[in-house]
Amino acid sequence: MSAFNAATAVRPRHRDDEYDGAASMARYDVDLDLGWSIGGKPNGGYLLAILARAATEAVGRPHPLAVSGHFLRPPDGGPAEVRVETVKAGKTVATVRATLWQHDKPCLDTLVTAGELAGDPVDYAAEEMPDLPTPEECRSRADTPFKVELLDHVDVLLDPATAPFPQPTGQPMIQGWMRFRDGADADALALALAVDAMPPTVFHLEKFGWAPTVELTFLLRGIPAPGWLAFRAEATFVADGWFDESATVWDSTGRLVAQSRQLALLGRPG
Amino acid sequence: MSAFNAATAVRPRHRDDEYDGAASMARYDVDLDLGWSIGGKPNGGYLLAILARAATEAVGRPHPLAVSGHFLRPPDGGPAEVRVETVKAGKTVATVRATLWQHDKPCLDTLVTAGELAGDPVDYAAEEMPDLPTPEECRSRADTPFKVELLDHVDVLLDPATAPFPQPTGQPMIQGWMRFRDGADADALALALAVDAMPPTVFHLEKFGWAPTVELTFLLRGIPAPGWLAFRAEATFVADGWFDESATVWDSTGRLVAQSRQLALLGRPG
Repeated sequence: MSAFNAATAVRPRHRDDEYDGAASMARYDVDLDLGWSIGGKPNGGYLLAILARAATEAVGRPHPLAVSGHFLRPPDGGPAEVRVETVKAGKTVATVRATLWQHDKPCLDTLVTAGELAGDPVDYAAEEMPDLPTPEECRSRADTPFKVELLDHVDVLLDPATAPFPQPTGQPMIQGWMRFRDGADADALALALAVDAMPPTVFHLEKFGWAPTVELTFLLRGIPAPGWLAFRAEATFVADGWFDESATVWDSTGRLVAQSRQLALLGRPG
Repeated sequence: MSAFNAATAVRPRHRDDEYDGAASMARYDVDLDLGWSIGGKPNGGYLLAILARAATEAVGRPHPLAVSGHFLRPPDGGPAEVRVETVKAGKTVATVRATLWQHDKPCLDTLVTAGELAGDPVDYAAEEMPDLPTPEECRSRADTPFKVELLDHVDVLLDPATAPFPQPTGQPMIQGWMRFRDGADADALALALAVDAMPPTVFHLEKFGWAPTVELTFLLRGIPAPGWLAFRAEATFVADGWFDESATVWDSTGRLVAQSRQLALLGRPG
């Protein structure tokens, strides 16, 4: 089993079909692995991948098409629980609410619409995969002043022209490559991690420090082919202490496979 | 009272602090007004505005900073109920789940993070407001083969170069102006409607027909100044029967005030 699959495993615990009189509730035990952290806090994309796994399992649909996560408080490493309430199981898609609980408190609340992507040819793409330097020509995300435990599992390589270290560019855009270090290929769930595995693009605006994500919506647009994933992340608007950051991920064939946008608080220095 | 405020009014009905043992639940009666429809179905942005109003009232925070809506089934016009569960009331923000119910079924499920925007100056904006023709030089959205009841309340004017009628351009981008016909100025809640009030951009790809939104996340980035709103919407990727559409809204001073992205099913002709 790949390190990612092991770290995002969910174990069904209990199903209460009487929950709330209307919906059914499935519960899963999970173990949050601090090896997938940034500065000691489990990565948001890692948590989304766990919830997406529980959500898709609960409704028997293979693909998390849209995952909207609202982050409440960072969990600790160790045991936690995912509660999945089926809101609607339709013909094309099923929608659930999946919530991560730990120490009797909700940590991350999500709505997930799940279904199955057919893998048909692309009808329209506004932009091609970025023209990136080769992975060998890129710079590791690990070459930063910050401790990023996640990078022990995921090799994140930055196009040197867009790397925020040693010198921010003033343009909040970062692009590059990523893949699992253990050789496992990314699947649909891994893309939920991929959209949140790059440094905050606002580092380029010299806004350093912890930049907590408040909301992140992940859209699965394709099932990735084996090999490196290419990514581009950018912030478009920074005001009132908030910024948005969008990420796009392409597979090794150049097909777009995931999109995300998050709203985050600017980091306070220190 | 403005037509928009009347059509999105919420009346508190019942508060059950015992709900689910942990969270508190507030209930609101609402009346869905088919004057705010497209082809006989209440507009998605109109519904999001109602839920955002109930959500912000329930937690006593003025601004819906991030609203993630998963659309389950289109409601009818008439009475409906919004159930708001407070998930976390924190210092900076509060997060709730707000769900629209009608005929004992959920129609639209949302997670809402609410707070207060300070209105501080903009730190960074990647792009300026588009350079649009004047409203007088634009074309009404109403000049289409489709019945759009919403346009009796909202004047939506399209930059002729980006209008999908009479001739699609092949580029799924539409920009223009909008404002309420009764002279009311847009507020934060009106922006949830604004991001979903333009024609589907995939009309430019000759994908006509009903294009149901499955997920739409709205981000409030500023409180609009009085006057016209400018908007730009674009689709970036169409595959497997799905497309994304992002919208950006600026106020009359050129400040960005809202962003959204939705995932929708391609319309079936007919």
